[in-house]
Amino acid sequence: MTKIAFIGLGAMGAPMARNLLKRGFEVQGFDIAAKSLADLQAAGGTPAASAADACAGADFIVLMVVDAAQAQTVLFADGALAAAPADATVCLMATCPPKSVEALAARVAETGRGFVDAPVSGGTAGATAGTLTIMAAAPEDVFEAARPVFEAMGERVFHIGERPGQGAVVKTVNQLLCGVHIAVAAEAFSLAEKVGVDAERMLAILSGTSASSWMLKDRGPRMIKDDPEVSSAVDIFVKDLGIVLEAGRETKAALPLAALSHQLFLAVSGRGDGQADDSQVIRAYRALNGG
Amino acid sequence: MTKIAFIGLGAMGAPMARNLLKRGFEVQGFDIAAKSLADLQAAGGTPAASAADACAGADFIVLMVVDAAQAQTVLFADGALAAAPADATVCLMATCPPKSVEALAARVAETGRGFVDAPVSGGTAGATAGTLTIMAAAPEDVFEAARPVFEAMGERVFHIGERPGQGAVVKTVNQLLCGVHIAVAAEAFSLAEKVGVDAERMLAILSGTSASSWMLKDRGPRMIKDDPEVSSAVDIFVKDLGIVLEAGRETKAALPLAALSHQLFLAVSGRGDGQADDSQVIRAYRALNGG
Repeated sequence: MTKIAFIGLGAMGAPMARNLLKRGFEVQGFDIAAKSLADLQAAGGTPAASAADACAGADFIVLMVVDAAQAQTVLFADGALAAAPADATVCLMATCPPKSVEALAARVAETGRGFVDAPVSGGTAGATAGTLTIMAAAPEDVFEAARPVFEAMGERVFHIGERPGQGAVVKTVNQLLCGVHIAVAAEAFSLAEKVGVDAERMLAILSGTSASSWMLKDRGPRMIKDDPEVSSAVDIFVKDLGIVLEAGRETKAALPLAALSHQLFLAVSGRGDGQADDSQVIRAYRALNGG
Repeated sequence: MTKIAFIGLGAMGAPMARNLLKRGFEVQGFDIAAKSLADLQAAGGTPAASAADACAGADFIVLMVVDAAQAQTVLFADGALAAAPADATVCLMATCPPKSVEALAARVAETGRGFVDAPVSGGTAGATAGTLTIMAAAPEDVFEAARPVFEAMGERVFHIGERPGQGAVVKTVNQLLCGVHIAVAAEAFSLAEKVGVDAERMLAILSGTSASSWMLKDRGPRMIKDDPEVSSAVDIFVKDLGIVLEAGRETKAALPLAALSHQLFLAVSGRGDGQADDSQVIRAYRALNGG
């Protein structure tokens, strides 16, 4: 039986670990929250006392931690990697900047173990349903060996390339497009507001033309409300476009539209609305243009 | 029988006029090109010797001319409006900046005649098939009287608002979104190129996530080719984003994403590639970032 060490049993990690258990994997889990360990046990998994303990005898180490710094601490400072078998493979599934992923992959490779850069998209809904999109980068044989693990958690599993960091880039590019699409929808609605065009009618029209985007259709209805329910906060895109720009700095790539969009999300956060729905980036335009 | 004066029988106007004839409208047409008049006659319409002649006895004057300046010349300098009955209605269907449309509408209103601001989207394919999207702004009764005329030419006929200029704004906003969506797709692919991610695989992934847009899916396949066939040229968006920014100036609305995107299209045109497919705005990023 394939044994998984699952580190990070939060809002995403917990349901992903449950899906591994459902598919018959043996899961040894670790999280700093005792509640998460109890939940894992209830689902049929084995709670561990530390990340290193979770890795004993593991074929795969799945990391669904907060960021690259935490992944590094777990693997090296906390001794998780050293505790794992010499032929274990690390699957880093958290969202991290590409260069950080490359650096982590290199340190893991020095120990002779495998590494798959495998960020996800689909949110907690996708994690729970097992329908995540997984963007994996690793040498072909390493990826193919890990494929059954990914297919237990995701529906659309893509092998992006051979080099760790490439998965992180695709995730970064995904967030670049998402962030700019929300910001430009706000620019569009703010122009319409200035001239008194009915926003709902405009949304209905533009959702059916070449001007449409997934974000326009999803965020548009909330964007034209004064104080909509929060689906995802402004500050999430302050963070995510920050990662996008960090990737641009690491790669030495100018990303002017992402940089400008980041400024707009930052401005709304700075005005005290960081916890508002991200569609409310339109408030940056109202602050600029009136209306 | 309802009589239409159709001015401007070009690539868009000619098939629109033919669709009016098919629906049983009487069409008196004028264009400076003799060939266009002969084609109208062959389709069952009546060629006129001047715009003013075309307007004699007309219930509706449809203008599918090049721009707002040409519409003004036809209506006033060339005497078309004065030649039309006192209860005729002008339907301006060319793409014009909103303030220009407002000014034209006001001058028409001074004569007591009706005015509908009614730009279209859908291109020559939509004009030929009679499936245009029509974004009309006019007082309710004026719009309703003109509705059968629009429904002969378009499939999606929207009454945007009561005030002429509002239709032009929606068309402008449509082009704002389209232009920025193409530019940000280029930014995304250029970042992926820098780090060596396979572009086709990335396109396949992102076309199915929240990062997707109509333009990403349509322009993406051509964007990742070195010298793709031309569907619509870079210079078209140099012009259209120019109209968007003119609308911003008229309305006193800052449109930073549109302005930045315009600069990118301008740069590619300035490098000699204005006639390349508009997906080749990615060449601006290659010039900036190498790769």
